[in-house]
Amino acid sequence: MALRLALDTMGGDHGPGEIIPAAIHTLKKHPELELQLVGLEDVVKSRLSSLSPDLSVRVQIIHAPEVVTMDEAPSSALRNKKKSSMRVAIEQVKKGLAHACVSSGNTGALMAISRYVLKMLPGIDRPAICTTIPGINNQTHILDLGANVDSSAEQLFQFAVMGAELAGAINNIASPKVGLLNVGTEENKGNYRVKQAAGLLSGSHLNYIGFVEGNHIYSGHADVIVCDGFVGNIALKASEGVADFFSHHVFSEFKRNYYGRLASVISMPVLKSIRRKIDPRRYNGASLLGLRGIVIKSHGGADRVSFAHALEEAILEVEKNIPARITSQLEALLIRN
Amino acid sequence: MALRLALDTMGGDHGPGEIIPAAIHTLKKHPELELQLVGLEDVVKSRLSSLSPDLSVRVQIIHAPEVVTMDEAPSSALRNKKKSSMRVAIEQVKKGLAHACVSSGNTGALMAISRYVLKMLPGIDRPAICTTIPGINNQTHILDLGANVDSSAEQLFQFAVMGAELAGAINNIASPKVGLLNVGTEENKGNYRVKQAAGLLSGSHLNYIGFVEGNHIYSGHADVIVCDGFVGNIALKASEGVADFFSHHVFSEFKRNYYGRLASVISMPVLKSIRRKIDPRRYNGASLLGLRGIVIKSHGGADRVSFAHALEEAILEVEKNIPARITSQLEALLIRN
Repeated sequence: MALRLALDTMGGDHGPGEIIPAAIHTLKKHPELELQLVGLEDVVKSRLSSLSPDLSVRVQIIHAPEVVTMDEAPSSALRNKKKSSMRVAIEQVKKGLAHACVSSGNTGALMAISRYVLKMLPGIDRPAICTTIPGINNQTHILDLGANVDSSAEQLFQFAVMGAELAGAINNIASPKVGLLNVGTEENKGNYRVKQAAGLLSGSHLNYIGFVEGNHIYSGHADVIVCDGFVGNIALKASEGVADFFSHHVFSEFKRNYYGRLASVISMPVLKSIRRKIDPRRYNGASLLGLRGIVIKSHGGADRVSFAHALEEAILEVEKNIPARITSQLEALLIRN
Repeated sequence: MALRLALDTMGGDHGPGEIIPAAIHTLKKHPELELQLVGLEDVVKSRLSSLSPDLSVRVQIIHAPEVVTMDEAPSSALRNKKKSSMRVAIEQVKKGLAHACVSSGNTGALMAISRYVLKMLPGIDRPAICTTIPGINNQTHILDLGANVDSSAEQLFQFAVMGAELAGAINNIASPKVGLLNVGTEENKGNYRVKQAAGLLSGSHLNYIGFVEGNHIYSGHADVIVCDGFVGNIALKASEGVADFFSHHVFSEFKRNYYGRLASVISMPVLKSIRRKIDPRRYNGASLLGLRGIVIKSHGGADRVSFAHALEEAILEVEKNIPARITSQLEALLIRN
């Protein structure tokens, strides 16, 4: 059976110029894939002119006359942009015409519209944003990354359930290790909510490994790391800041003088290999978990390589049927409690 | 006049083996410096045997028979280790015999004992941990880094006052830019406490520049970044994790095969220069602000290079008379309110 994705082609900093090349690349890679390209019809069409007929038949253009801008208030996007590419793409999922939707657009608007159109799973209040982090030994799923600030212990517990289901399915792990992000690993550390959440996790069926610290995010210590969105968002952006700081110094030193430039030419294969390993584009594509449908948020600044990775994430989540897995986990919890 | 520092020589992962060489190095650099080396007398003495007479006269050994271990509960260290090197070093400051104390020991114990022995400045509840972060353009002071979890808006405001005073004095800035760490820069972003703190900061005499995001920690965007200790601790440790992840890949790629090893030999001067620029040891030495005295916390894993930087931080804070500056700022605030 065909796997169908709806793409918001107008979202992000680059819009169709990067999203459509990524779409075509992914279409070539996955013969069972069908894409719905949602956006301004003329713009989308003009970028598909050279598409071969065998690929064309797997592409549908869906006209959407409006665009949600990157700085628009979510409430305004929800009220006033009913014909936006973002909303129409999400509605394709709601109508059962697409298996998932992918957007690089305004995160707040994507959450608000997804929540309004698709609705939440029973017992979940707002979507949690979950992404994959590369680690020295192992990759880690971390959530929430900013959708929920001031999360209660119960919410942290729900994040754990959803994150464990996602990490388990995507990485084929029977019992993913779940860690709770804290300022220390000792039991007495942290704030009230974290301690309460630790109690809920300890008493659950999850493979809870206890508190983890900020550096464990990149060590592969846990398969899933759970935190409040305020903390997760800041930790992730701080990480981006360090990465930029590193890159800045590496490149400026290699460019600083004649010797540096010579060394960089000789080291080029090694530098390229390093860059490939630490390339954040490989990890693009965050999941909005807890919705009745699959919505993948791509980084706003994503280029074609990066956006293609978000599409791969969407394909994986469709294949693994993530919302249904999460639903059955949450139902099991409701029965137990 | 002599500048006197009391050193907890037994603290940290390495103890006197790294601390005493750092002490001797710093003694040579600062002719006005006198050091009080607190710890097990025999151990300290044995490491000073080759010290020249002109340096010896500026060193005093103070025997302390007990040691606070790295994993000891702060309450237990406070109650049971009254003769520890950490406590005796802090007491030197209390008695007016030293201008500041430096320790690589257990952070929780250092805070608890400092607070008990030195007492807090009026209106401050607990010490805030403040450190300097290297940035692409500029360095940033960030606080709190874990002493206070669940900080109120008033506490965040106090962190701003103390941090601005420290950053202004150390970096010779008349009106340091103060940013409040949040999940976005828009006014409607964040949790209740951050929004409340933004109100307090906007109405104050401080040079408040608004909300800053996690990546701004490393951009030099602000001179001072204020956050709750839970968030600050996790952001900083996440940064350490990314740095380790980067270093791991850089070094493993340069070692992976014959070509990589050759490239690393040729690139050595450049790699060394990069390493120097991003070396976290240069930023070792966090301040415990809000105490009636100067206490500098060195990283537990600090080696001699790193510990020497913590000593430099202590010397600077003594020269700039930080606690007196903070006191007069806090008093001015009390009068205004």
